[in-house]
Amino acid sequence: MEFIIKGGTVLTMGPGGRIRDGAVVIEDDRIVDVGKARELGSKYGRYEAVDARGCVIMPGLVNAHQHISMSLLRGYADDHPLKEWLEKYIWPLEAKMTGRDMYVGSLLTCAESLLGGVTTVNTMYHYQPDWNEAKAIADICMRGVVGHVCFSWRKEEDRRALEALFRDWHGKADGRLRASVDPHAPYTVDPDYLVELRALTDRYNERYGHLGRVVMHIHVAETPDEPDKIREAFGREVKEGVFAYLNELGVLGPDVVAAHCVALTDRDIAIMAEKGVKAVYNPVSNMKLASGISPVVRLLRAKVTVALGTDGPSSNNTADMFETMKFASLLQKVASGDPTALPARQVLEMATIRGAEALSWSDEIGSIEPGKKADIIVVDLKKPHLTPLYDEESHLVYAARSSDVKTVFVNGRPVVENGRLTTMSLEEIMEMAAKAREDLLSRLEG
Amino acid sequence: MEFIIKGGTVLTMGPGGRIRDGAVVIEDDRIVDVGKARELGSKYGRYEAVDARGCVIMPGLVNAHQHISMSLLRGYADDHPLKEWLEKYIWPLEAKMTGRDMYVGSLLTCAESLLGGVTTVNTMYHYQPDWNEAKAIADICMRGVVGHVCFSWRKEEDRRALEALFRDWHGKADGRLRASVDPHAPYTVDPDYLVELRALTDRYNERYGHLGRVVMHIHVAETPDEPDKIREAFGREVKEGVFAYLNELGVLGPDVVAAHCVALTDRDIAIMAEKGVKAVYNPVSNMKLASGISPVVRLLRAKVTVALGTDGPSSNNTADMFETMKFASLLQKVASGDPTALPARQVLEMATIRGAEALSWSDEIGSIEPGKKADIIVVDLKKPHLTPLYDEESHLVYAARSSDVKTVFVNGRPVVENGRLTTMSLEEIMEMAAKAREDLLSRLEG
Repeated sequence: MEFIIKGGTVLTMGPGGRIRDGAVVIEDDRIVDVGKARELGSKYGRYEAVDARGCVIMPGLVNAHQHISMSLLRGYADDHPLKEWLEKYIWPLEAKMTGRDMYVGSLLTCAESLLGGVTTVNTMYHYQPDWNEAKAIADICMRGVVGHVCFSWRKEEDRRALEALFRDWHGKADGRLRASVDPHAPYTVDPDYLVELRALTDRYNERYGHLGRVVMHIHVAETPDEPDKIREAFGREVKEGVFAYLNELGVLGPDVVAAHCVALTDRDIAIMAEKGVKAVYNPVSNMKLASGISPVVRLLRAKVTVALGTDGPSSNNTADMFETMKFASLLQKVASGDPTALPARQVLEMATIRGAEALSWSDEIGSIEPGKKADIIVVDLKKPHLTPLYDEESHLVYAARSSDVKTVFVNGRPVVENGRLTTMSLEEIMEMAAKAREDLLSRLEG
Repeated sequence: MEFIIKGGTVLTMGPGGRIRDGAVVIEDDRIVDVGKARELGSKYGRYEAVDARGCVIMPGLVNAHQHISMSLLRGYADDHPLKEWLEKYIWPLEAKMTGRDMYVGSLLTCAESLLGGVTTVNTMYHYQPDWNEAKAIADICMRGVVGHVCFSWRKEEDRRALEALFRDWHGKADGRLRASVDPHAPYTVDPDYLVELRALTDRYNERYGHLGRVVMHIHVAETPDEPDKIREAFGREVKEGVFAYLNELGVLGPDVVAAHCVALTDRDIAIMAEKGVKAVYNPVSNMKLASGISPVVRLLRAKVTVALGTDGPSSNNTADMFETMKFASLLQKVASGDPTALPARQVLEMATIRGAEALSWSDEIGSIEPGKKADIIVVDLKKPHLTPLYDEESHLVYAARSSDVKTVFVNGRPVVENGRLTTMSLEEIMEMAAKAREDLLSRLEG
């Protein structure tokens, strides 16, 4: 299909910068032209026109850390202490989740994400015999990196799961899906297994890299007590920081996507910069779980690539990247005492091109450039809270909401039109989720 | 007019608690009955029915600190250092604002507020010969406390303005409007003038209190350098805290609404509790301006009434109280290191009944109780980000958005129906605001 999205301000988030009265041209799954609406309008006069007057046209947002299956747990037992929340509520309920529940939960998160302008998600979850997260992303027409989360206590199962995941999903769904190797965290994966998973990442890259670069996705330094947890679990002393420990094991590299990065030493930051490790900042989850504040300003100063994530629906409780952008900036401002910290432009980069870079996917997504995949969103600025308009970037970060997203393209396909999902019935997904919740609770009681 | 809002979960935020399959009955401007939908449905069968199935029915939100005129400055020169932002950008533009600009800006903020479920606003702004904030609140059918902000450098002007404000607006617009006495801050209002304004508040209370209690609205302890600013301005040493200083002057009491309360000493908190001072917590503004974090958990422990505010549109940049509720809770969680801090229920109270108490208006608003004014909102939970449902309160604080507000009643009148403003044309307000911005910028350049 051929489209011309025109009349709005194009934020390319790459070369070309900001184009007022701009247009973006799509042929099949690719962006083929970007420029002024007047010029492109006549050149591509027969392409299907998408009216973006009064709107921003920008790359789809990249949510770089999620657990999309978990939406069925959203809002279940909030405001409890962490240990009680996990042990008494989340884990028992999670244990009752079926593959079908994961599929429905994933569809729900994907629907919410697409409606809110998120076109790519990086998700990590438990072993799934039938790969429901991947299936949901494929079915609803989103883009994603799907990882199998690995723990020391189930190495055999993990190895089989990774084999199947890469074979069946990496590069599939018209190239919208990629697989990843996801050690859960340094305190749940022993040093030997971390080294093995590093080697596995390299091996999958050799075998499947031609279909898309393989990354390793891991939680690191989410809370300050992580060194203690590593010592308790594996008898290893972590004195200079968790990244320093990972570096000693030789597992770091530019393909490592490290979620959270809250409790970092100066040495950690230096190592992350040296090794090209990608950080994912999850401000809403970090605040809600009282984990701490990631030193993002210092990471950026050290030239570490920082992407943005919402984390899973049970610790956020939304998949709303607009909300996350505002939290991201404001938390750094108040933490640093500097109202100029993490300005709007930088946050928008983190939510788009830096996210793509973090996932080693910036050759195809993260900015509006001819030749890249057509993952594009149109944000309607004709709203009272976005009036008047001085600066689009400021509005997108400090005032816009997910509900201002009007149109979304993924891989050249219009998946949201006038704020409505086109690829599946949103009502049916919500009904399935409500039903799944009831069944889940009755299994818990039964 | 007579209405029955039925089928949703009623959160009364007062006696009665949470009523599933509930209903609220309105006659003219008052709530007359609250209970189960089945019972009330037959009793009030001929009243106009408002369908609230799958929704929450709750009191309208109270935004306890605003500067509603300032929406024309929204997003103008964000991410600059505070001094430069004020001196180079905000103040020069503000100086060019006309009465008409203030009216349009106020309408815009009121429209955004109503659409987002805010029915009452406490607003403070500069002298307005024709009281545009009050006029806008009256015209669009909102409820509000409108204050004239007082400075040492314009006492005569202030005194005349206050006289006119109380005479013309207190208790007007069917009782939807109240006037207040608003000393700007302890560093811009000298000690003698503070004492005078305290006495004026008492005098207006004697004269106009039968139309509604008069409050004194003031910024206090927004930033840690306030004691220095007071010393520099008035040669007064503030050693034990800003509230301790105000207490020495004898200006504190239960009718004092103190915005921000960020930099407090233990003595300040003890005095606030003793004198019954009301605090307004503005988490988004405090974070965006890097002012600091209000010790809300300690205030609540000391039994101080804490309300919630967005602050003005130029330092937030929205009037979104749903967003503010989430920020309010999450900021306290991360600051205290305790994920159970400021749970959802407490935040909802701050946004409703505590706000009403802060404004000395809880005899008429802030909860759904027979006899109170019918300021009621209906929040639609049939959204992907609010699915599935375990707990309405948790969803309202951690996942709901302003755009989920479906229906709003103010003083018994449906001012928002199916997400659309009914009392004025939203499109016209936005057009007027866009035009006003253009004219403002050309006056600045001219």
